[in-house]
Amino acid sequence: MLIVPENLIAELVTPEMALTAVEAVFAAMARGEARNFPVVREALGHEDALYGFKGGFDRSGAHLGLKAGGFWPHNLERRGLINHQSTVFLFDPDTGTPTAMVGGNLLTALRTAAASSVSIKYLARPDARVLGMVGAGHQATFQLRAALQQRRFEKVIGWNYHPEMLPNIAKVAEEAGVPFEAVPLEGMRVADVIITITSAFAPSLMADHVGPGTHLACMGTDTVGKQEVEAELVAGATVFTDEVAQSVSIGEAQHAVSAGLLSAAGITPIGAVINGAHPGRTREDEITVFDGTGVGLQDLAVAAAIVDLAVARGIAIKVDF
Amino acid sequence: MLIVPENLIAELVTPEMALTAVEAVFAAMARGEARNFPVVREALGHEDALYGFKGGFDRSGAHLGLKAGGFWPHNLERRGLINHQSTVFLFDPDTGTPTAMVGGNLLTALRTAAASSVSIKYLARPDARVLGMVGAGHQATFQLRAALQQRRFEKVIGWNYHPEMLPNIAKVAEEAGVPFEAVPLEGMRVADVIITITSAFAPSLMADHVGPGTHLACMGTDTVGKQEVEAELVAGATVFTDEVAQSVSIGEAQHAVSAGLLSAAGITPIGAVINGAHPGRTREDEITVFDGTGVGLQDLAVAAAIVDLAVARGIAIKVDF
Repeated sequence: MLIVPENLIAELVTPEMALTAVEAVFAAMARGEARNFPVVREALGHEDALYGFKGGFDRSGAHLGLKAGGFWPHNLERRGLINHQSTVFLFDPDTGTPTAMVGGNLLTALRTAAASSVSIKYLARPDARVLGMVGAGHQATFQLRAALQQRRFEKVIGWNYHPEMLPNIAKVAEEAGVPFEAVPLEGMRVADVIITITSAFAPSLMADHVGPGTHLACMGTDTVGKQEVEAELVAGATVFTDEVAQSVSIGEAQHAVSAGLLSAAGITPIGAVINGAHPGRTREDEITVFDGTGVGLQDLAVAAAIVDLAVARGIAIKVDF
Repeated sequence: MLIVPENLIAELVTPEMALTAVEAVFAAMARGEARNFPVVREALGHEDALYGFKGGFDRSGAHLGLKAGGFWPHNLERRGLINHQSTVFLFDPDTGTPTAMVGGNLLTALRTAAASSVSIKYLARPDARVLGMVGAGHQATFQLRAALQQRRFEKVIGWNYHPEMLPNIAKVAEEAGVPFEAVPLEGMRVADVIITITSAFAPSLMADHVGPGTHLACMGTDTVGKQEVEAELVAGATVFTDEVAQSVSIGEAQHAVSAGLLSAAGITPIGAVINGAHPGRTREDEITVFDGTGVGLQDLAVAAAIVDLAVARGIAIKVDF
């Protein structure tokens, strides 16, 4: 089997490669050729850690396996390690033997960024020029970097609950040659695309903060109770997601659904747009929402692409297992 | 991190070591210091394979991780590989980083054998002399080899639906210097200990095949619908198990429970006997049943012991992950 350790991931993976892999697996999910397994997520009662497994099988890509890991909130302060820790394990679907083990930390950041990028590629207006960021933490820098490649953005505007963090994303915008401006939430009305990437439990972005024709990628909500966006804003939009079952239960749409404003039948898998089965945006002034909840198949798809590239470059570690 | 490939397991693991590890983790489970996570088990719709994850966390032993793998029924005929394929992954519970990857095939056979052995150690009469085997497949040889170490057995008797397989277990008995005799099911009445290890969906061992004072280890039933032993036999016995939740749902006790003859409250975790919280057998003529369903923590415990030994012998493969 092959091992690609965390310290090799940065030189192998690119936002383009993550986007290609995630796009393909979203499409396979919508065709019924790939599915995610039930997620295991457990509070350990030790180090305040959350730990679990996200597995899946993509027949079309021949990807089988899981991401194992979780969140150790004291890693950084106590040990100088990052708090999110994960590893991807791939198996041969024909035999069940393990084929690869891949560091999952940077990979997770990039596959999450790739998901909002895919949604911008397929759902934002082609003439989108202003990109709004709600959230300015570590993950926001990945979302922004990937998003900037999808349209000819001329300006990035940003808001964060802690404004002192805004330089994180200002730096990414400026490195890409795009000017950055900090704005109040009301200032988001001029954005053509907005990415929300916070870990809030109450909405910050309200319906009157969002202009007509905007594409909204809600990427922060992955747990019961989290919320970034007013439920009425979601309910009034055309809603897409990675996986409908997660969207209605742990995604941003959970609130519109539990308020009776939206149902699972009203949410479209983004893969259907990629496959051409759904037209996506149909009007200039339509507000589209992508509810990105994060699925194990994204991890497997990007990990498999990383392994292929590591083999091609001759840097995968081979172990006779 | 450390890697112990499948081909090193045979020279590292012993039935004694597996027994010690499994006994410790059963005890930790009964003290509430170790718990198994929800099991993921999925039919892939590819190669007729079943695949999934059994994870857990043992705070007392500092074991965190999972066994991933499953059953590929065509491996042997089509590829010359064994049909059960699994791999154990261990993580540092303090940080979430992966610490070890261990071949899980032989390990699974030995940890399953260790479970019935632990039950014999704590529940069989000290003067048990006749060991009965119901089942004579590959796994039966492991159960028998481990069981023979727990009492001064003077005879092994065996029954199998396919009698032509009985030489598998006759060979193990004879290697241990214990005579073997094939018997009809009625002949099991003379056994002091009986291990059932088949994959049957209808009972073969009935109440009138079992004499008073027998200890019965039912090891084959791990799925809804499987059954080795008449429900009335289980209901009339004192019932112990590895994990009560599994015993009543997927273990041998599922049938007595669904017939209303037994309830979860009437089943004791074997760990309570190991810890001294339950007396175990209290009468010479009592029939005791151990319902061995198999839990992920067994795999983690044995894998961790294997890693320790591989390190001590200097044969663990070290990878900078």
